Amino acid sequence: MTINISIFDTTLRDGTQGEGISLSAEDKLKIAAKLDALGVHYIEGGNPGSNSKDIEFFQRVKQLGLSAKITAFGSTRRKNSVAEHDTSLMRIAESGVKAATLVGKSWDFHVHTALQTTLEENLSMIYDSIAFLKRNGMEALFDAEHFFDGYKNNPEYALAVLRKAQDAGADWIVLCDTNGGTMPGEIHDIVTRVRSELTADIGIHTHNDCELAVANSLAAVQAGARQVQGTINGYGERCGNANLCSIIPNLQLKLGYNVLGDDQLKTLTGTARYISEIANVHMPVGQAYVGNAAFAHKGGIHVSAILKDSKTYEHIQPELIGNKQRILVSELAGQSNIVSKAQEMGLDVNANNEKTKQIIDRIKELEHQGYQFEGADASMELLLREAFDGTKEAFKVESFKMLVDRGNGSMVSEAIVKLNVDGTPVYTAAEGNGPVNALDNALRKALLPFYPKIDEFHLADYKVRVLDEKGATAAKVRVLIESAGPDNTWSTVGVSSNVIEASWEALVDSFRYALLHMDKVDVVPADQSERVGLVNQ
Amino acid sequence: MTINISIFDTTLRDGTQGEGISLSAEDKLKIAAKLDALGVHYIEGGNPGSNSKDIEFFQRVKQLGLSAKITAFGSTRRKNSVAEHDTSLMRIAESGVKAATLVGKSWDFHVHTALQTTLEENLSMIYDSIAFLKRNGMEALFDAEHFFDGYKNNPEYALAVLRKAQDAGADWIVLCDTNGGTMPGEIHDIVTRVRSELTADIGIHTHNDCELAVANSLAAVQAGARQVQGTINGYGERCGNANLCSIIPNLQLKLGYNVLGDDQLKTLTGTARYISEIANVHMPVGQAYVGNAAFAHKGGIHVSAILKDSKTYEHIQPELIGNKQRILVSELAGQSNIVSKAQEMGLDVNANNEKTKQIIDRIKELEHQGYQFEGADASMELLLREAFDGTKEAFKVESFKMLVDRGNGSMVSEAIVKLNVDGTPVYTAAEGNGPVNALDNALRKALLPFYPKIDEFHLADYKVRVLDEKGATAAKVRVLIESAGPDNTWSTVGVSSNVIEASWEALVDSFRYALLHMDKVDVVPADQSERVGLVNQ
Repeated sequence: MTINISIFDTTLRDGTQGEGISLSAEDKLKIAAKLDALGVHYIEGGNPGSNSKDIEFFQRVKQLGLSAKITAFGSTRRKNSVAEHDTSLMRIAESGVKAATLVGKSWDFHVHTALQTTLEENLSMIYDSIAFLKRNGMEALFDAEHFFDGYKNNPEYALAVLRKAQDAGADWIVLCDTNGGTMPGEIHDIVTRVRSELTADIGIHTHNDCELAVANSLAAVQAGARQVQGTINGYGERCGNANLCSIIPNLQLKLGYNVLGDDQLKTLTGTARYISEIANVHMPVGQAYVGNAAFAHKGGIHVSAILKDSKTYEHIQPELIGNKQRILVSELAGQSNIVSKAQEMGLDVNANNEKTKQIIDRIKELEHQGYQFEGADASMELLLREAFDGTKEAFKVESFKMLVDRGNGSMVSEAIVKLNVDGTPVYTAAEGNGPVNALDNALRKALLPFYPKIDEFHLADYKVRVLDEKGATAAKVRVLIESAGPDNTWSTVGVSSNVIEASWEALVDSFRYALLHMDKVDVVPADQSERVGLVNQ
Repeated sequence: MTINISIFDTTLRDGTQGEGISLSAEDKLKIAAKLDALGVHYIEGGNPGSNSKDIEFFQRVKQLGLSAKITAFGSTRRKNSVAEHDTSLMRIAESGVKAATLVGKSWDFHVHTALQTTLEENLSMIYDSIAFLKRNGMEALFDAEHFFDGYKNNPEYALAVLRKAQDAGADWIVLCDTNGGTMPGEIHDIVTRVRSELTADIGIHTHNDCELAVANSLAAVQAGARQVQGTINGYGERCGNANLCSIIPNLQLKLGYNVLGDDQLKTLTGTARYISEIANVHMPVGQAYVGNAAFAHKGGIHVSAILKDSKTYEHIQPELIGNKQRILVSELAGQSNIVSKAQEMGLDVNANNEKTKQIIDRIKELEHQGYQFEGADASMELLLREAFDGTKEAFKVESFKMLVDRGNGSMVSEAIVKLNVDGTPVYTAAEGNGPVNALDNALRKALLPFYPKIDEFHLADYKVRVLDEKGATAAKVRVLIESAGPDNTWSTVGVSSNVIEASWEALVDSFRYALLHMDKVDVVPADQSERVGLVNQ
């Protein structure tokens, strides 16, 4: 009989403790919807009492109608107090979620040192807090913090903590390797012991400080744990949490557990990449299973063997988890993607048509140069519209100049742009607090007379990545710009060895995309002096 | 009795199969010296017959007088041929190294599909090739490619392969999980079986396709393997090789094996970071043990507990592996570092002196802003010399301007610099194929009349990193520039939200550092028109 494993995702809570990760309420909602489509069973949203972002998240997530259980996070009640009066517990009960995780101490050393209370009071804190959730009709998960360190130091007390949570009605008892220092063999032995002592379902929550979080999660499951807590891409404090993108396929494809549906598993790679984009954390090319190089082959012998039989150098079929083999230049999943995308846009596209082949070749060539359209839908749409729809560029760039000037310690960035808007020449300049800001200001100033609504959108995010860090001053960079209008956002891309040019490309695409959906005002062409007067006002 | 584990580093061979990693012979020599100081037992240098870089490496590495055994890598002889006439084996014998690793097939499927020969001929190929090494007086390591897949498919044949290598005199039989698809439990069981069948010493070589390479290496050691093959930072094809930076401390600090000396272990973090700089691969902040965030604490509760007792949230003392706790802003190991560095430079520096405290505060402040002096020794030296030595800047920057101009599809980058060289004003301009190249050309042109030897150095490497990818167009970047003279190299750093300004800072530091060691020529001050004529020639 196949054993079911429950996946508890804490990307939105523990994942955001990772250095450099900061998610808005909007980001969290997008991620929650994506996780739900992947099929995780629990989505930990955060602490509903801790900050305004989390409060907003819990209010809005109800409207998404997700299948996964949204859970709130908090601690056991404060020492020497009453659960009913604990502000944090009250907020959880009022948040409207049906399940919550409470973290409590299971290492006697921590009870003394960090909590500074008695072992007995800690047990009461756990009992009272879990019982409070149950009285409020909620599913209760108990996170036993530092359980493995606690067990090694004082097994009887650590087990007493778990029994207390069980007695209070905890639905899941989750064993946490909070410092990430435990070895897989110890995890296996200790989980086996816990299983023999408890009747409640056991979960495992590990950290990657020894690069063993995945192995430790598997060891716990093999010893009887039935829930795995982790994050997408292993985000989390210090070295991160257990990486669900590796744990899920290992459990399902290698060890025969039942975790997700086969179709859901195929969305794993897309989910990982989408969330890395939202979190704006560079995904290592070599990330297991879902990385861009996870099934990439460059060695000559490997490639010739792969072409004979892909099993020779691939441990699974990459398609099972939505990744793909890479040998040749082509990065794109294939022309069927492009055709279906164009058809979505209402364009008359046919896979066998010569023009389609040309645009596919063009996109492959651009991806080879370093463009990446997965994160730049708007640039892709412009390419397709111009090829198939005869969509005209909203404006033509005649030239641009960028001046960076440092004198007397102050920096000035100035941009000069020369455009042609439907036959009307426009030539203007603007300053900014940096080169890209100046270019943005100049473009905006030039186009405002024609598109008075241009002020309704702005640049929301700007990212630079060096594609090939070698190559001294000729290193290529990719710039991604995210823009936001009143009710939508779009992303555009530019690539060049000149960072100013790459930024300019992405910026121009962003404006062109915005103007596609904006009414143009007729500005009467005038002589050049007058035009300069107009746009320089 | 403590068990010794032999560490076989293949960063220079298998590590260079990683996407985006390319090492010059010079890079490889620097890395070999660093690995030797760390105390690894074997350093695999590459394939002495495969390319000119590796040939140069094997010639020059002998002069370094390293303690580690340098090993060459190759395959078993070609099918239906004689080892003595195999060019690749001959090159290994002639390379002058005392040990070599030969890879051979142990998966019957591969013998048929990839090698396209008989199982019997494959056994002969292995026997002949290992025997050839032994006849040449070399230590012989046999890498059994795909051993675990082979064993699962045909255990008898896979074991026969190992016995053949053993019979031919192999000193080490290394079991390879080439596709990285094996689970830790399988590794443990199969290594246990192999140990019961063989007398030769066993090694383990794993890949990280399931994010289990570290766990699999440990499982093999716990089952009796006595050598671990891996790479620094886990570099390698697809998802990488087993990461020695995690395996070594896990074996030594967690599982009680004897691997390196305690003092050597303290160089682990420095070694990992140095090699990531040479390989120019960004080290993830969250990398286990050696990452910059591996012992970083930001949660309020964690920090207060850490301050009570660091054991509360740290699984080991970070100093054991040369890393450090990070709570506060200060990134620098401490003032003792700065004082000893200044003393190395012959500066009269005292830790208790007010000026020393000021410069330490200044460096901490700069590091907080994103400067990183570990990778920019020359910028650090300039700071110290200017503070303690009264070293004057070789030139003063009055102003610079950078013009990027795109018209008619072509990009022009132009730089205008205004300097003051010992009272002489210089004002000049130059073009380049990108903004940084133009700034470099302009500086060079301005300084050449004063420092005719300025042509003896050039920019060797240029790196940009976005420090805080959020923050739209105001994202901060760090630029690192490596410069090379006739017999030395130096690195400098600049940080700004304006990439042009950050590049300029690093460039100016590079020139200042170079000029410290160059004779200045007296250029007679002339009126401004004449000077302009001079420098614009």
